[in-house]
Amino acid sequence: MKIVRSIRRMQILCREIASKGRKIGLVPTMGFLHEGHLSLIGRAGRLSDFVITSIFVNPTQFSADEDLAGYPRDEKKDIRDIETAGGHIVFIPKTSAIYPEDYQTFVTVEKITESLEGAFRPTHFRGVTTIVTKLFNITRPDVAVFGMKDYQQAMVIKKMIRDLDYPVRLVIAPTVREKDGLAMSSRNSYFTPAQRKEAVCLYRALETARTMVIKDGVGNVAVLQRKMKNVIKSICPTAEIDYIAFTEFETLRPVQKVSRKHVCSLAVRVHGVRLIDNMKML
Amino acid sequence: MKIVRSIRRMQILCREIASKGRKIGLVPTMGFLHEGHLSLIGRAGRLSDFVITSIFVNPTQFSADEDLAGYPRDEKKDIRDIETAGGHIVFIPKTSAIYPEDYQTFVTVEKITESLEGAFRPTHFRGVTTIVTKLFNITRPDVAVFGMKDYQQAMVIKKMIRDLDYPVRLVIAPTVREKDGLAMSSRNSYFTPAQRKEAVCLYRALETARTMVIKDGVGNVAVLQRKMKNVIKSICPTAEIDYIAFTEFETLRPVQKVSRKHVCSLAVRVHGVRLIDNMKML
Repeated sequence: MKIVRSIRRMQILCREIASKGRKIGLVPTMGFLHEGHLSLIGRAGRLSDFVITSIFVNPTQFSADEDLAGYPRDEKKDIRDIETAGGHIVFIPKTSAIYPEDYQTFVTVEKITESLEGAFRPTHFRGVTTIVTKLFNITRPDVAVFGMKDYQQAMVIKKMIRDLDYPVRLVIAPTVREKDGLAMSSRNSYFTPAQRKEAVCLYRALETARTMVIKDGVGNVAVLQRKMKNVIKSICPTAEIDYIAFTEFETLRPVQKVSRKHVCSLAVRVHGVRLIDNMKML
Repeated sequence: MKIVRSIRRMQILCREIASKGRKIGLVPTMGFLHEGHLSLIGRAGRLSDFVITSIFVNPTQFSADEDLAGYPRDEKKDIRDIETAGGHIVFIPKTSAIYPEDYQTFVTVEKITESLEGAFRPTHFRGVTTIVTKLFNITRPDVAVFGMKDYQQAMVIKKMIRDLDYPVRLVIAPTVREKDGLAMSSRNSYFTPAQRKEAVCLYRALETARTMVIKDGVGNVAVLQRKMKNVIKSICPTAEIDYIAFTEFETLRPVQKVSRKHVCSLAVRVHGVRLIDNMKML
């Protein structure tokens, strides 16, 4: 497996791979990989000949009050895990090369970024679409794999690909969960064991909503939100809920009456750690 | 010569060309071509194996009060001229394909777009960088040729290429002028013969400034501006000057003391037609 740190070298390598008619798969990550990430690498491997996993903690998608400085990192372990998962190249660019001193170009997707995460993290998606544009231009992937855990992010990238005419196939892989249902996330490492137990509240609330929708035919958003809030508070009394939303899958438009076509997304601060999760009401 | 109107077909064609190891040259235009455009095609032909000329009157770079609806068009003549100039493909996408109904993604270059044209046309460069991004993603050129007449535009694209890591070589070709010095522009077609004569005022003002800088060693911006204003008004008494600016070539930063390293740019409304021009003080 190759480890590439230079943007220029990565571009040359990708041109060589493409010139041989081999398909490139891209898995963009911020490192500190868990099984969720590794499942994306596995998926990319089945859809392409050459899997590039990027590791880059992207400063432009963090706001000043967020956890950029403390974001967990373990490059050595990541490299070992990527190799085990079948990756071919790890791309680890320097921040100063990705965003040189006079950097001034940004990619913005409008409407679809305004709700949910976008409402709570106003510059977040601009940072995401900008770094993904750069990674697309550097690696020119045939396929890019993103996780369903970051559902809105995946939909924003999908819209960007379509709007900017990127010849990239977007694949969204299912969320990988811990045994108790907690969605895997690098940020789960912030918890003490006691706090970690309470982090299951998001999953439990989603499962409760799903049961209400598909078993009991409940479609009223307010009823579902109230019940979910109770579930969350009963597991983690100090939880702070940013949002509980029911939306159309592709457009992220909020729905009036929830059915099996819809997705529930939520963001909750559990002992100071902001977690997100989502579930199709299927 | 091929005429391609479908984005998808253009992408497939470009992949085929690239897979044979042949270099692609791109010349983005808004059509109604003049000798300036044709010189760009010639230049692209010397730097690549396959020249794609796009014709697209890009609505996102016009503001509501500008001349989008009346912008001159002559597709048949353009196609003949491109073939004569040595073009291989003409790409003429539909507006509804480039900007479908729910279009919502834009590319923005900050600082460098704030002065000169950007100050007078606030959404102009966002439109330019967005369409060029799309054309880059559709055609994946090795080289793209832009004209020096739109000097700030060329510098904005250069910054975008660098910031977004496009593996594209930008070439800026010299402004082609009419016999009297007027920079060629599709918008010159708006003039009556009498108005057309007065349109030379921009060129004359630039030549006056250049002589003052290189012959008389005048470096004072206010002195140069005052003299240029007089030259313009003496040729076209009804002219309205948007700006006369002296800047550093790459950064577009305004300069205090003008020397041979600098560029003079100006925008003037001549009988209701907004013209721009520029000249290095060499």
